[in-house]
Amino acid sequence: MKLHTVAELLSSDITLQDIEIKGWVRTFRANRFIALNDGSTINNIQCVVDFENTDEVTLKRITTGAAIHIKGELVESQGKGQSVEIQVKTIDILGDSHPDEYPIQPKKHSFEFLRENAHLRTRTSTFSAVMRLRSSLSFAIHKYFNENGFYYMHTPIITGSDAEGAGEMFRVSALDAKNPPLTEDGKVNYKEDFFGKETNLTVSGQLEAETYAMSLGKVYTFGPTFRAENSNTSRHLAEFWMIEPEVAFMDLAGNMDLAEDFMKSVLSYVLEHNMDDLKFLENRLLDEEKTKPQAERSEMSLIEKLKFVVDNNFKRVSYTEAIDILRNSKPNKKKKFNYIIEEWGADLQSEHERYLVEKHFKCPVILFDYPANIKAFYMRLNEDGKTVRAMDILFPGIGEIVGGSQREERLDVLKEKMKALDIEEEELWWYLDLRKYGTAVHSGFGLGFERLVMFATGMGNIRDVIPYPRTPQNAEF
Amino acid sequence: MKLHTVAELLSSDITLQDIEIKGWVRTFRANRFIALNDGSTINNIQCVVDFENTDEVTLKRITTGAAIHIKGELVESQGKGQSVEIQVKTIDILGDSHPDEYPIQPKKHSFEFLRENAHLRTRTSTFSAVMRLRSSLSFAIHKYFNENGFYYMHTPIITGSDAEGAGEMFRVSALDAKNPPLTEDGKVNYKEDFFGKETNLTVSGQLEAETYAMSLGKVYTFGPTFRAENSNTSRHLAEFWMIEPEVAFMDLAGNMDLAEDFMKSVLSYVLEHNMDDLKFLENRLLDEEKTKPQAERSEMSLIEKLKFVVDNNFKRVSYTEAIDILRNSKPNKKKKFNYIIEEWGADLQSEHERYLVEKHFKCPVILFDYPANIKAFYMRLNEDGKTVRAMDILFPGIGEIVGGSQREERLDVLKEKMKALDIEEEELWWYLDLRKYGTAVHSGFGLGFERLVMFATGMGNIRDVIPYPRTPQNAEF
Repeated sequence: MKLHTVAELLSSDITLQDIEIKGWVRTFRANRFIALNDGSTINNIQCVVDFENTDEVTLKRITTGAAIHIKGELVESQGKGQSVEIQVKTIDILGDSHPDEYPIQPKKHSFEFLRENAHLRTRTSTFSAVMRLRSSLSFAIHKYFNENGFYYMHTPIITGSDAEGAGEMFRVSALDAKNPPLTEDGKVNYKEDFFGKETNLTVSGQLEAETYAMSLGKVYTFGPTFRAENSNTSRHLAEFWMIEPEVAFMDLAGNMDLAEDFMKSVLSYVLEHNMDDLKFLENRLLDEEKTKPQAERSEMSLIEKLKFVVDNNFKRVSYTEAIDILRNSKPNKKKKFNYIIEEWGADLQSEHERYLVEKHFKCPVILFDYPANIKAFYMRLNEDGKTVRAMDILFPGIGEIVGGSQREERLDVLKEKMKALDIEEEELWWYLDLRKYGTAVHSGFGLGFERLVMFATGMGNIRDVIPYPRTPQNAEF
Repeated sequence: MKLHTVAELLSSDITLQDIEIKGWVRTFRANRFIALNDGSTINNIQCVVDFENTDEVTLKRITTGAAIHIKGELVESQGKGQSVEIQVKTIDILGDSHPDEYPIQPKKHSFEFLRENAHLRTRTSTFSAVMRLRSSLSFAIHKYFNENGFYYMHTPIITGSDAEGAGEMFRVSALDAKNPPLTEDGKVNYKEDFFGKETNLTVSGQLEAETYAMSLGKVYTFGPTFRAENSNTSRHLAEFWMIEPEVAFMDLAGNMDLAEDFMKSVLSYVLEHNMDDLKFLENRLLDEEKTKPQAERSEMSLIEKLKFVVDNNFKRVSYTEAIDILRNSKPNKKKKFNYIIEEWGADLQSEHERYLVEKHFKCPVILFDYPANIKAFYMRLNEDGKTVRAMDILFPGIGEIVGGSQREERLDVLKEKMKALDIEEEELWWYLDLRKYGTAVHSGFGLGFERLVMFATGMGNIRDVIPYPRTPQNAEF
């Protein structure tokens, strides 16, 4: 007999004899109604137990969290709230769950408590929905790139170059931690380490992705990246996943087109495939927002917000225009911003980004052509000599979700910029080679995957959208 | 004007006016015929230059590796070897490639030389084919699991638990490397490290995947894993990618079914989608094998081998049967094996695995029910008390490609096995919780992705199937 899933049975429009299902008890009420879940959908299937003909011992073992095996019939439901239900013929307890000990009780748990029990939290509706959406978004990303002629590339996690400067790095080593070998002048002798040099965890696969774009044309990465920054916030992780497409012969305008089309496509995918989970999360968010003052509540519901992004053009605004808007804005004039915008060249803080997106434009915004000196060395210098072809996409409620640029393809200009920042040419000899041999315009961007999952699920803390978050003082599980 | 790709144009069955294409020159002969490639296919498109009306300077700059922009017409080819070609109207040099300096000359380079130039090696036909196949296999994997109701899960890369014992680990730290803080009893004080404890790079996501299988039902990981083992061989990497599905309510027989169906499905996918690349690699392998003595050559060509796996059942053989076969085999009796099989309980070496696959059964083999004491602690003990429900899949030319098991779901048995191996319960409290609350039969396996890419491409060295290999003394790029 084939094992059915809850999702299959709930979508059946015919009654079925001899069905068989395994799953975990969510609730058991009136000694009769089991709400059973197996992870295949957010919805439970109701299993009706013939308690008069079931032994007492078994009935007592039907507790929240227990794994059970049910054989029976799928019939039209007599009760409200479901169209089908299972008339149980036999029930086997596969694994007990002691009701006094099981941490996941059928009640509301705080997210903090569930983080401490992250190995069990996908047994709740909220976290199972979040993680199904995370999976669905991942697939949508691979599907989009595959359909658009991109090749998936695994860039290295352990890296010997620290030239990128995207942030503090974690050291990877196999040397004795207490007494590392030293060189004659008293430094740690990394020549004796596993790789024969000092190595770190990557902060980005972009530079390596460029090498593949300049031969395979269109590539993307989707892998873990790391920051050893002591940021204990609801928006930062020490280990997170990034998507980084890179395309030869594409300029900044093409990059903006790609990023917008890509974001719309992956969000469309979950609107099409994950509506049950989205509806649940939408209601969860509504409940959560009820506890907040009116002014802090979202104007749109979760699903409305996703549809809004899919259906509307992203507003494209140059950094220079944005500075004008911010300088003349009420919070700037009334000194409500923590960082007052005074002149061109200022780095935008998240308060400014959120003002632009949430108050001024009220839609996703692509800012482009930033001042060169607040952006990375590899970005293409504009003809004005002071701005670079950078772009950031800002989303409501999230802030920066995508950062990208056209890359500096001119060897002499790139060398000059590296020199100004004390980046040694020997460190990036291979990156410079791309400009020596068959160089061309090329562009790409990076998307922090967890930011996307937060946006699509309405979850407010980044620790709740990744299975096992790594943050300062926390590497449990 | 839309930019075309080489792949699009080569598959066009109509002539096209006003086409536009960008790519890199592979060769330029007779001052007239450019073989142009843009990564979209292994095939080049022939671009015919009207050299009488093209200036000398431009003609000289059409060198191997140069990036160029061509406008022209797609016409039926007059020459042999291609059905269409481009009549060039205008040609722009986007990026030069100095013919005396460019490392990738239009000739055969050794793989060793290309490893040293890994940033340029995808500009060769062999490596572009390998990396397109790698990408295609990745997509096939995601597609298979998505279509079969699995959720993709990102297990942590940085891990605080070292209980798994799958091999030597790399330490991840942000402490001062030379003078780490010490505890009172003179050990490194990891409480002061970023995560407040000693952390390493993961060797497997299995244990965490089990936590998700026991709530979401069917999950899989596809991420990087690490071994700090000083193995300088053609089959080992310090950083490699693994796929690890894990399924609740599935026993070892189901696990074998899943693994076989999965392997066949992903190989079918590349047979369907990557035939041009496969044909090229098949010929490359034939050329390579011509240099070998007859006895060492494969009996099947690359594509035949892939089709053979797709079309034939994997032979399922218990460890006990395998030992009998090996004990009575010629190489054992004639003491040709380095490790002579004498009795039940011996660990199989790769020479034995290859004998079973390549000489005895001549097809993929699934070995199962291994002696408990040569396998990991988490494998389900059989009723005989001496074997565990483990399985390994052996492939011709590769050896072990998949390793999996049914997991020990009984709390008391698991605790006993951990005790025997000195694994502290506190280290894996969360893993034990899965057996306390709603435990059930579950199983999964691990597939080393690079082994699969080697098999599908016919490449003999694992360093040639990953973009930037990490091996002892090497973390370049």
